[in-house]
Amino acid sequence: MSAAREPLDVAAIVAAIDEVLAAATRPIALHEPRFGGRELDYLGECIRTGWVSSAGAFVDRFEEEIARFTGARHAVLTVNGTAALHVALLAAGVSRDDEVIIPALTFVATANAVQYCGAIPHFADSEERTLGLDPSKLAEHLAQISDVHDGRCINRQTGRRIAAVVPMHTFGHPVDMAPLLDTCRTYGLPVIEDAAESLGSHYHGRHTGTLGRLGVLSFNGNKVVTTGGGGALLTDDPNLARSLRHLTTTAKLPHAWEFRHDEVGYNYRMPNLNAALGCAQLEQLPAFLEAKRALAARYAQALSRITGARFFVEAPGVTSNYWLNALLLDREDTGARDALIEALHKERIHVRPAWTPMPLLPMYRGCPAMDLRTTKSLHARLVNLPSSPHL
Amino acid sequence: MSAAREPLDVAAIVAAIDEVLAAATRPIALHEPRFGGRELDYLGECIRTGWVSSAGAFVDRFEEEIARFTGARHAVLTVNGTAALHVALLAAGVSRDDEVIIPALTFVATANAVQYCGAIPHFADSEERTLGLDPSKLAEHLAQISDVHDGRCINRQTGRRIAAVVPMHTFGHPVDMAPLLDTCRTYGLPVIEDAAESLGSHYHGRHTGTLGRLGVLSFNGNKVVTTGGGGALLTDDPNLARSLRHLTTTAKLPHAWEFRHDEVGYNYRMPNLNAALGCAQLEQLPAFLEAKRALAARYAQALSRITGARFFVEAPGVTSNYWLNALLLDREDTGARDALIEALHKERIHVRPAWTPMPLLPMYRGCPAMDLRTTKSLHARLVNLPSSPHL
Repeated sequence: MSAAREPLDVAAIVAAIDEVLAAATRPIALHEPRFGGRELDYLGECIRTGWVSSAGAFVDRFEEEIARFTGARHAVLTVNGTAALHVALLAAGVSRDDEVIIPALTFVATANAVQYCGAIPHFADSEERTLGLDPSKLAEHLAQISDVHDGRCINRQTGRRIAAVVPMHTFGHPVDMAPLLDTCRTYGLPVIEDAAESLGSHYHGRHTGTLGRLGVLSFNGNKVVTTGGGGALLTDDPNLARSLRHLTTTAKLPHAWEFRHDEVGYNYRMPNLNAALGCAQLEQLPAFLEAKRALAARYAQALSRITGARFFVEAPGVTSNYWLNALLLDREDTGARDALIEALHKERIHVRPAWTPMPLLPMYRGCPAMDLRTTKSLHARLVNLPSSPHL
Repeated sequence: MSAAREPLDVAAIVAAIDEVLAAATRPIALHEPRFGGRELDYLGECIRTGWVSSAGAFVDRFEEEIARFTGARHAVLTVNGTAALHVALLAAGVSRDDEVIIPALTFVATANAVQYCGAIPHFADSEERTLGLDPSKLAEHLAQISDVHDGRCINRQTGRRIAAVVPMHTFGHPVDMAPLLDTCRTYGLPVIEDAAESLGSHYHGRHTGTLGRLGVLSFNGNKVVTTGGGGALLTDDPNLARSLRHLTTTAKLPHAWEFRHDEVGYNYRMPNLNAALGCAQLEQLPAFLEAKRALAARYAQALSRITGARFFVEAPGVTSNYWLNALLLDREDTGARDALIEALHKERIHVRPAWTPMPLLPMYRGCPAMDLRTTKSLHARLVNLPSSPHL
């Protein structure tokens, strides 16, 4: 960040990354799934039994296994992480014209899910230590702009209710949840963790997605384990779990033959075919996590001699799944960042910058936001590196 | 309908249905998928190649094959039929506080998709000849309640714009599209066909879903062919196809590494794993359709001697896929209908009445509606019968 630091030696970085990935076949993707377990057996079982759709033994089993792995009391499977975020917000009481605080540095699904509720994203800054929502800036911001009336947190500047806070565990690195939860408690704000990227990441011993009121996972093709497309909701609250299950299955009331629905529901349930893949993948998750941490250690080692950039490592007290490894340039220099990206692409090593910050996208321009200087800085300095477990 | 007709002989109907299904193992489901083709080969190919998620060869191939089968110029795959309906409405220009005319007798997804756009369902009556939206009542209703100003059709009673009409091909039986399209042309209303149940059904030689501006298919587990969960959009308009593809893939702009999105998009793309199943199923569709029509003919034959009820057959000039076979009682007598349903369930033959008409569901109470006497009558008189192709 400071001009006094060394300029970027692109060639040296490319050489260091090349060395880490020497054994891999080019082109090297950013994140590819690995199917080395019982995937075909379980898919075959779906075909043999005829259960492929939104009910079936693998749906129940994958839910139980996800709950066991994360320590959540309940897991509810969905077609994808976006759908899970959407119903999590609805179940937390987010309504039309509410505001929801989310990081500006996130995948667009976090903001879109807010918009699906008819609500407005309110963008928060990230901290460099975790790449996630900055709890102390959040506390400061809420103190400045909001009032609590009758248990409702009102944005004084817009007159709208702030209905929830959605921290997102960026590239698998846990947000600093303890101070964030404290602040949210003070303002009566439910916390929904966007843990789409952080299956296998823990914050002081607790799995990400189980610290707030609700958590959301993703099993997209680029995630640590995949179901093709898929997601899950995590909660300890049995009533909430019941309501999530109801909302994701068209809000149909149980009956042997009658079709009655008591609210606007969604067709968001994960099919059994996809859950079967999930069950096979989850059996390999411990091995995937181990391989991913080993890869991160190799990157850290190789990049330790580099000047002008550093490999991003987990904060003390947390365990990251290192979903997407990240390199942070010292200086905000998108020219140097893009030169590095292009040089690596030429070597057929796929890398990418962080997402475009949400307020720069046309549909989210003009949404409420706090000062976003760290977001801007991280966006100008960050490059994600290939992170597949088999590397 | 008339009190002069014969009362219902429940035992005789049960005996007739029992005879048709004599060879089948109990319990007999309403509609079960059949996997007798290359399902496992294609799933295996996904696992072997590593392509299971929202891009892959089976997605492209299934789109091409669906387009070829239906005669649509473009097909765009989605996670399910509900998602397809939602983006079809958005692409047709449906906006917040618009009204969309849909049949009152439909699966709840049709109404929910309207609500997802922030629009209001406006319920239309069905006709007994097709079980679908009644074109002449629609013409009469629009003449009575609407004005066209500057190409916008305005509901005089609510002041809201009527933005689209969504006929639904009930249980596979095509709506009488020609007069419906005429009326919609007069009022400048785009037609979106909900063909979720009618893959393989034709209206005067043209496949359902290709007659309006946009069509929607479903590949849910209970449909003629299944992808676990899945749906498709059909259109002949290349610009519309492009916009549907964009909307269903988070509205991301193409770029080798940058993440930019230019509108609120959706994570609605069908995963390759599910498309693989679809490709294998589609190869068997002609055989499934033949088997289903043969089953319908057996029901028609067996039930021809029954008094107080008749088997529902396709209208002249159309071909139904007979997705769900239906029995229509002569009289509106929900007591007799339920007695028949219970008697068949006791025989472990799963049957069901039509869906609860939409205006009776709490969330759609009070929505605008025309006179719905045929909907009410059909709901009181209809029973769906087991319809799997292997029966």
